[in-house]
Amino acid sequence: MTSDVVKLAQSLIQLPSVTPEDAGCQKLMNRRLSAIGFDIEEHFFVDTLNTWARKGNSAPHFCFAGHTDVVPTGDESAWQYPPFDGQIHEGMLHGRGAADMKGSLAAMIVATERFVEKHPDHKGSISFLITSDEEGPFVNGTTRVVDVLEARDEKIDMCLVGEPSSRSSLGDVVKNGRRGSLTGHLKIKGKQGHVAYPHLASNPIHKAAPALAQLSETVWDHGNDYFPATSFQISNIQGGTGAGNVIPGVLYVQFNFRFSTEVTEQELQDKVHDILRAHQLEYEIEWKLNGLPFLTEPGPLLDVTLAAIKEVTGTIATPETSGGTSDGRFIAQTGCKVIELGPLNATIHQVDESVSIEDLDKLALIYELILEKLLT
Amino acid sequence: MTSDVVKLAQSLIQLPSVTPEDAGCQKLMNRRLSAIGFDIEEHFFVDTLNTWARKGNSAPHFCFAGHTDVVPTGDESAWQYPPFDGQIHEGMLHGRGAADMKGSLAAMIVATERFVEKHPDHKGSISFLITSDEEGPFVNGTTRVVDVLEARDEKIDMCLVGEPSSRSSLGDVVKNGRRGSLTGHLKIKGKQGHVAYPHLASNPIHKAAPALAQLSETVWDHGNDYFPATSFQISNIQGGTGAGNVIPGVLYVQFNFRFSTEVTEQELQDKVHDILRAHQLEYEIEWKLNGLPFLTEPGPLLDVTLAAIKEVTGTIATPETSGGTSDGRFIAQTGCKVIELGPLNATIHQVDESVSIEDLDKLALIYELILEKLLT
Repeated sequence: MTSDVVKLAQSLIQLPSVTPEDAGCQKLMNRRLSAIGFDIEEHFFVDTLNTWARKGNSAPHFCFAGHTDVVPTGDESAWQYPPFDGQIHEGMLHGRGAADMKGSLAAMIVATERFVEKHPDHKGSISFLITSDEEGPFVNGTTRVVDVLEARDEKIDMCLVGEPSSRSSLGDVVKNGRRGSLTGHLKIKGKQGHVAYPHLASNPIHKAAPALAQLSETVWDHGNDYFPATSFQISNIQGGTGAGNVIPGVLYVQFNFRFSTEVTEQELQDKVHDILRAHQLEYEIEWKLNGLPFLTEPGPLLDVTLAAIKEVTGTIATPETSGGTSDGRFIAQTGCKVIELGPLNATIHQVDESVSIEDLDKLALIYELILEKLLT
Repeated sequence: MTSDVVKLAQSLIQLPSVTPEDAGCQKLMNRRLSAIGFDIEEHFFVDTLNTWARKGNSAPHFCFAGHTDVVPTGDESAWQYPPFDGQIHEGMLHGRGAADMKGSLAAMIVATERFVEKHPDHKGSISFLITSDEEGPFVNGTTRVVDVLEARDEKIDMCLVGEPSSRSSLGDVVKNGRRGSLTGHLKIKGKQGHVAYPHLASNPIHKAAPALAQLSETVWDHGNDYFPATSFQISNIQGGTGAGNVIPGVLYVQFNFRFSTEVTEQELQDKVHDILRAHQLEYEIEWKLNGLPFLTEPGPLLDVTLAAIKEVTGTIATPETSGGTSDGRFIAQTGCKVIELGPLNATIHQVDESVSIEDLDKLALIYELILEKLLT
């Protein structure tokens, strides 16, 4: 009764691959890919197992990308069903990673098996780029494998990342891009002193407040057809010695931009500097670019994905670029077209993560249809 | 060669009375006061030794107030001379408490001994209100003794606190009042969320920034002849989970007013509420009144003090109300006139605290002259 897709998803859930552990997931997947003609490369970097599996050498080169690692469970006793059991109740497969993204991995494998069985001599190539470091610091995962491929000039043309993109029903949303993410660590300098002698001190909180107000209110761009407007958020602020009678000498502020393709990293940095300088602040900033924005505009990959979703579910999917970052950004940097399509994300990273088994079966059909449309 | 005043100051420094320890200082002082006819009461509250010593029952009632406790030394190896040795080098007495305020205590005792010897039948009363809790939380010290006196309707008319008031030369500044101190613990509420989904969250740092800017820029009053303008300082600010991708749900801000007699505690609170409400913030504030402002306007005590300083040093002292709080505020609350006069405060609370031995001898002369002028 239980489908091949759901059985494989269960098996993957039962391997407790809390990031950056792979816990045997890739071995399980790779055995099945190897059996249908894939060449398997395992790339282990520091603490992260990555797989690069490819079948065929010609173009077009289509890649399934994803991750075997999952976020921690938190207090397991808070779960209705044990998080690494993979139990099925009332049509739902339960467990950590069910939706993010072991269900997608199972659907990719089974879809590929079915496609290869039907079309042993398909055109182009199929590959899998799988990591166990997507939920962690994403340092030793996809980005490192992409480096390996770039170094040997191996190009991916189109990539489908199995991130859970769906909002209310399977396939209602696909991601055809992601915003960029730029973090700033700002240190505003004042002069420490006693609150009773403010004329001998310079309070960095007072000096910074109008600048922070202006940064909070600034419109950075208006977005475009594919991207919402760039957003600025202060995530952390800390100033003070803890003592109530001391004016602190330094204020620390951490902020983050999620930015569209309407603005560059450099333009954002320049504008922040302009605002801070206009308020005559003495400051330092350390910048960290977490990811550049990427966009897959309408074209073969997006068209085929939307068509496959429509055929299997009847849904007309909305392409969106909202939400957090994903490993898609690393692959998109190579010039590859990237789409993200997976199950509902309502329960991801939460207690009682689960996924509809009907959706998983449909997701496998959609993935298979995408292969059909692109590689036959 | 070493004067009585300096010898006693040395003995007090050699007793390591780091707050709230008294370490035998009061016993040493009380033996000498007892010998010249003072009645001694020791009031021990929780961890704090306090002395109430009085000679005479009639008015006017003049009180010397001070503290035996000292602030910690920090790294003792950073001191040029050991902080509890009381060594004299090149006219300076070195050690923790030399200036704040064991030198003053020694000057008070010796001045009183000399005065009582010359005027055994002086008019009025002399008292000593000494605590070992001035540098700490000032909960079990002067304020508790004042409660005891109030409960039995024992009134002090005039009080001289030995805090180191002098800035550049002995007696150049006396304190004839202190500003009030009001602390606010402000909690600004937002809604926690992911930085990638700012529309689902409400960033309390962004919401608060314009209000904090306005609070920082507000003119609360213009002070008056005796008080500088009321000042507002944010001493601590903290918001954020530490994670770079989380919009915090709450921002904590601690601020402090040093306020003049031109504004009341209630007016300050009202104005803060007005500003926070005008910015439509959802917030809570916990207020803590550390001390009300007090002022000793020109009159017998101030006049006599200024005259005594002028006679001994030639200096025309400036009465000021600047600086931090002192135990004077507790005594002033009873309606008593309070003046603070002590040695130079340049090295207090620092490594290598020291005081001029010439100044200590002169300080004893000033104190004695004040007694002469008030009680003969």
